[in-house]
Amino acid sequence: MAFDRLIEKIVWMQNPTAAGLDTLLDYLPEFIREKAFARYGKTLDGAAAAVLEFNKGLIDALCGTVPAVKLQCACYELYGWQGMRALRDTVAYAKAKGMFVIVDGKRNDIGSSMRAYAAAYLGETDVGGQAAPAFGADALTANGYLGTDGIAPLLDVCARQDKGIFVLAKTSNPSSDELQNQSFEGGETLYETMGRFCEKWGASLPGRHGYSGVGAVVGGTWPEQLAELRRMLPHTFFLVPGYGAQGAGADDVAPAFGRNGLGAVVNASRSILRAWQNRGAPPEDYAKAAAAEAVRMRDEIIAKVGTIRL
Amino acid sequence: MAFDRLIEKIVWMQNPTAAGLDTLLDYLPEFIREKAFARYGKTLDGAAAAVLEFNKGLIDALCGTVPAVKLQCACYELYGWQGMRALRDTVAYAKAKGMFVIVDGKRNDIGSSMRAYAAAYLGETDVGGQAAPAFGADALTANGYLGTDGIAPLLDVCARQDKGIFVLAKTSNPSSDELQNQSFEGGETLYETMGRFCEKWGASLPGRHGYSGVGAVVGGTWPEQLAELRRMLPHTFFLVPGYGAQGAGADDVAPAFGRNGLGAVVNASRSILRAWQNRGAPPEDYAKAAAAEAVRMRDEIIAKVGTIRL
Repeated sequence: MAFDRLIEKIVWMQNPTAAGLDTLLDYLPEFIREKAFARYGKTLDGAAAAVLEFNKGLIDALCGTVPAVKLQCACYELYGWQGMRALRDTVAYAKAKGMFVIVDGKRNDIGSSMRAYAAAYLGETDVGGQAAPAFGADALTANGYLGTDGIAPLLDVCARQDKGIFVLAKTSNPSSDELQNQSFEGGETLYETMGRFCEKWGASLPGRHGYSGVGAVVGGTWPEQLAELRRMLPHTFFLVPGYGAQGAGADDVAPAFGRNGLGAVVNASRSILRAWQNRGAPPEDYAKAAAAEAVRMRDEIIAKVGTIRL
Repeated sequence: MAFDRLIEKIVWMQNPTAAGLDTLLDYLPEFIREKAFARYGKTLDGAAAAVLEFNKGLIDALCGTVPAVKLQCACYELYGWQGMRALRDTVAYAKAKGMFVIVDGKRNDIGSSMRAYAAAYLGETDVGGQAAPAFGADALTANGYLGTDGIAPLLDVCARQDKGIFVLAKTSNPSSDELQNQSFEGGETLYETMGRFCEKWGASLPGRHGYSGVGAVVGGTWPEQLAELRRMLPHTFFLVPGYGAQGAGADDVAPAFGRNGLGAVVNASRSILRAWQNRGAPPEDYAKAAAAEAVRMRDEIIAKVGTIRL
């Protein structure tokens, strides 16, 4: 089970965090942009080349201390198919450096289309009998609004290829309460129902360390709901966005962790990508600044969670 | 407003349907696959080249009678960044032939990431001050699970660039009832609530013909819910999947249409893409078979709906 690999890496590194490579041109030092523009012009090719170079520098600096990266798809689709090529290349580079790679696509569709997403991001594409991996991630985020038959094709690929998914339960954004906090007749909220589905969907993908191959996305901006869902969903591993630029701190995300400090990986994107800007570091030290911020974040969270043990 | 353009085209052609280019290699005649494989090998490049050639043939055959195409993203992502390049090229080809292009990505994310999706699919990407369109569609499907701040960035681009969105309300798949049909306290179902949000979100994007820039996806496999939502949501244009291979017929989709036969566009994908296989046509006549199926579908629906008028 894919989350076993992630969990073991978290324990080994004593670091339950992921670096979010939600890379936008604005976050890049000018020297990287200018080098790419000099070669490709101010085009999508130029943008994608700059993003990829920036990402590689970050991965080199982070892979010794941070177990996972999360790539937010929109930031790559923004730069067209060239951006998607940079996503593919970033995934491959991070995996070669031993990192666990989560693609944050929040994909959702009916069964026949979800089979295509599952193959694209977690499995392999069949081209006339030849297997060709399209994006090759370890885990994918998904939206469960369509119900079981929109998730089942992902479970099939997870079982066959040792991969995992994170389903949106309670998202980190301010208006997530508009729908997700509404209570159904019987009193259960939509996010609680989605969490319960995660436990159900995960039952067919048990892991060695108590967590299934179906995780849940629960925003660090909602500590009460994090604590509640942690109690409700003992086999569901959490991906916790919202740390840093979105406002959550170590106290807020601490309830995501259960017994032995296991149960969650906390993601920060902008605070790491923009660390060189936030810390006033020289542009050429952008990766060093990101690594320093990642270590600071790790230390802050570990101070709350304690030693993480299997 | 983008849906004004779509509505006017529907009326002009007397055809309220879209052809779904959910193109998979299996649906292609062998001669197209073999030609691409001979040039690029059995690779993602080969697959994407074959898909693009097939799509162009279909668009040539359909553009005179069918007002719109819908491209399901998963089928392109399945073929990697090369598939996304084929998506971009298919969008451009269909637009050049005058068709209205819906990208069916069911995208969803927090505000800052949704801004990137909005620019990628409906707007333009800024690369160092140069505007570069990434995918350039007329409309995008979206999932509203994250609430208003996950939709607002799309509304901004729709207003500025004359584009539209379709938000998932009641999806066509069998297990859509698991969550979408649950009733909240007060009695309203999740799909009804999502429909009500479509009316609310659309209020800032009024159209000339009574329909806003925020449409809803409502599956043709659920005629009762279609009729109910048609009554509930007078300003919301419907994208109705599920016709053909998923089992809905003209009687099922008829309730999607309101006054003057307006209010909806019905999509069929596999029944059109695979018409040459279903009808036993010679492979080289695949586009002709698709066009014949599209005309049959149009006639069947128009027989129920009557003349469509502004």
